[in-house]
Amino acid sequence: MKASLLILGIMITNSAYSQENTAISKEIIALEKTALERWNHGDLKGYLELYAEDIVYFDPMIDKRMDGLKKLTEYYKQFEGKINITEYEMIDPRVQAVDNMAVLTFNLNSVEGNQVYRWNCTEVYMKNSENKWKIIQTHWSFVKPDLN
Amino acid sequence: MKASLLILGIMITNSAYSQENTAISKEIIALEKTALERWNHGDLKGYLELYAEDIVYFDPMIDKRMDGLKKLTEYYKQFEGKINITEYEMIDPRVQAVDNMAVLTFNLNSVEGNQVYRWNCTEVYMKNSENKWKIIQTHWSFVKPDLN
Repeated sequence: MKASLLILGIMITNSAYSQENTAISKEIIALEKTALERWNHGDLKGYLELYAEDIVYFDPMIDKRMDGLKKLTEYYKQFEGKINITEYEMIDPRVQAVDNMAVLTFNLNSVEGNQVYRWNCTEVYMKNSENKWKIIQTHWSFVKPDLN
Repeated sequence: MKASLLILGIMITNSAYSQENTAISKEIIALEKTALERWNHGDLKGYLELYAEDIVYFDPMIDKRMDGLKKLTEYYKQFEGKINITEYEMIDPRVQAVDNMAVLTFNLNSVEGNQVYRWNCTEVYMKNSENKWKIIQTHWSFVKPDLN
């Protein structure tokens, strides 16, 4: 009897955990896809509006981690109107989450002209004081850059 | 009077937040350094013991995100006894945290033989059921790989 109650308890706990995580996963992935699709058409504000003030950022073009929305906004200006991704595939997005923080990871193939760019991506989201998810950390890197 | 109480409230809140984050930051950075120093001398278990079962992982040598400690343990076998980092510099480590989840980011210079390897790193830590910090996401990438 005790064992079956324990098992029931674990099942309920796991189920609640899964459902909550599924809801957070769906929300986070939807936010990311919306920002990414805007980016693909040269609209940088999808991401800029999703970034927290204290975002930290890596990509393969910068020397060192970039800190803060102000610097990142300045850095992004060079890409304004210069992006035209015609196809993309977000591969196997996965969200690991607690109530107020979540990490989204995925691979991304982006097609621009005749080139396919293959990316690794890690986004960390945190809920802000208005209960809205904001990105506090972004890490973009190329898949196997030495072999490109 | 109300305004000064409000300001006091904000100061106390910020102070508590900062102290808590400072404590978490110190703990996370210490865990990372210990694992990294073991890795630098060819001991892979520092990281393997710190990884959660459901870790997700990126580095510049793999085709796609790697999921789970079992696969990562298998993958790491090739590095066993083959690493000899004689100097390293963890540059500007920063931790953004809530109670049970934290993201650590830093740049890393590792010296092996005559070569300096320059890395970007993002580690996401989560507290497990035993209240111990475990890494649930790792992302290593080269700084400006096309320029190496």
